[in-house]
Amino acid sequence: MRFEIRVAPNSGFCFGVRRAIEIAEKTLASTKEAFSIGPLIHNPQVIDRLRQAGLQPVDSPEAVDPSGTVIIRSHGVRPDVLSRLNERAAKSIDATCPLVKKAQQSAELLALEGYTVVILGERNHPEVEGLVGHAPGAIVVNADEEVPVLPHGSKIGLVAQTTQYPADFRRVIERITRNDFDEARIFNTICHATVERQKAAVELATDVDIMFVLGGRNSANTNHLAKICKATGVDTYHIETAGELDEKWLDGKRRVGVTAGASTPEWIIEQFVSRLEKVSGG
Amino acid sequence: MRFEIRVAPNSGFCFGVRRAIEIAEKTLASTKEAFSIGPLIHNPQVIDRLRQAGLQPVDSPEAVDPSGTVIIRSHGVRPDVLSRLNERAAKSIDATCPLVKKAQQSAELLALEGYTVVILGERNHPEVEGLVGHAPGAIVVNADEEVPVLPHGSKIGLVAQTTQYPADFRRVIERITRNDFDEARIFNTICHATVERQKAAVELATDVDIMFVLGGRNSANTNHLAKICKATGVDTYHIETAGELDEKWLDGKRRVGVTAGASTPEWIIEQFVSRLEKVSGG
Repeated sequence: MRFEIRVAPNSGFCFGVRRAIEIAEKTLASTKEAFSIGPLIHNPQVIDRLRQAGLQPVDSPEAVDPSGTVIIRSHGVRPDVLSRLNERAAKSIDATCPLVKKAQQSAELLALEGYTVVILGERNHPEVEGLVGHAPGAIVVNADEEVPVLPHGSKIGLVAQTTQYPADFRRVIERITRNDFDEARIFNTICHATVERQKAAVELATDVDIMFVLGGRNSANTNHLAKICKATGVDTYHIETAGELDEKWLDGKRRVGVTAGASTPEWIIEQFVSRLEKVSGG
Repeated sequence: MRFEIRVAPNSGFCFGVRRAIEIAEKTLASTKEAFSIGPLIHNPQVIDRLRQAGLQPVDSPEAVDPSGTVIIRSHGVRPDVLSRLNERAAKSIDATCPLVKKAQQSAELLALEGYTVVILGERNHPEVEGLVGHAPGAIVVNADEEVPVLPHGSKIGLVAQTTQYPADFRRVIERITRNDFDEARIFNTICHATVERQKAAVELATDVDIMFVLGGRNSANTNHLAKICKATGVDTYHIETAGELDEKWLDGKRRVGVTAGASTPEWIIEQFVSRLEKVSGG
């Protein structure tokens, strides 16, 4: 079997994920152990390594050892989780992605200034839960849902989960402004790096015979990547590690594309490409 | 010739025009004469009547008698015109339509808070000139124009001339949000009564054989009415008075529709309908 292997530009770690991991590693270097509320990032393999280094994901602030250190995950948390952590007197270190932070601040400002806040995102994603916490009463919609019709004279504020598609964001804007409204204030909180990664992945997908998307199954942006690659019509496989590769998938393929989510580390991409090279006899 | 005559609901004077005329009449009742910068409203027949009652339209603040009274037209004026009037010490009475006032305040707020202000409207219309005066440096676009691409990180503010079409407004919003932007703040300054008048006119236009749109040739909202009635495919005539009717137009017509702009007085509509009734032998 002989095929060409191409890795999409902008694959793998984004700035916010790299920063969160660096913060965790630096913290663990001095404290030896620390907690995070939920996984620090959405990649099980990275989380395993961090667990070995002493980072323990827990479900709630109450599960944190009062004398311990807690690292706020890259997706951010609700303000009430922060205050519960502060009450417990555990030392907390903020590894929230700066772009998520900005989205939280935008949601908070809109709520404080009396806007009805609409959030485009996945209802149960921790980032969105954090955003809603910053704008209590916010309405969460996904790209397929209608926006509720608000009373005449409404002031509507809109933010998006940072990993949403720009096209979906525009669709929600269209729905909001098709209804009656007095003022619409829209913060474009979509991460530019995510958009670039999506573009590069789609471009590569249209030019290969099979596409691999590497990353956590719990990673929203990796799932998005797989969805849009599949939508180009190419055979697409979303896997977490090289170990999941079934060589039969490669039968008759001449051009193989690879991309990876924002929380997928370089070593996972490298191991997968090495495995592909072996199969290709390279 | 026998035909049915139907007048569209919501034809004629809107709240803002009625208010401006009442202010003028009340003022003239005590002062006997007064000035306006440009015509008070966009209807030549009403302006003629007001001129006979003592209201003199002038081109600039400097043409106002310093001891006289000036009435600010329904379309509003630029702030510098206001201050020039104050400097001349002429007494000024504000007949700006409250909805135009609100649009001016929105444009001013956006400019003060550092937004790049975009105005959907007709560049040379007095209302738009007033809006630009409240947001110096604002970019005026019409429905057929692209919105300039702004630098990365831009905060864009949008308002519309009160008589624009909602569909055009949404088109501009779509163009703005298709480009890169950080924040878009949109004030829906379109007059609801204008929208209702347009809807009623289009509905009637699709149900008659000929449509008459009554109102000043210089009236933006009357021109809009004529345009959207014509767009339904029905024969459409935009005239100012009954005197302009050519009876040949009615040959073979069985259902005749009438609508009128926001600055068209009831007596013009009545005179026209009477004339139609005579032609119809009614």
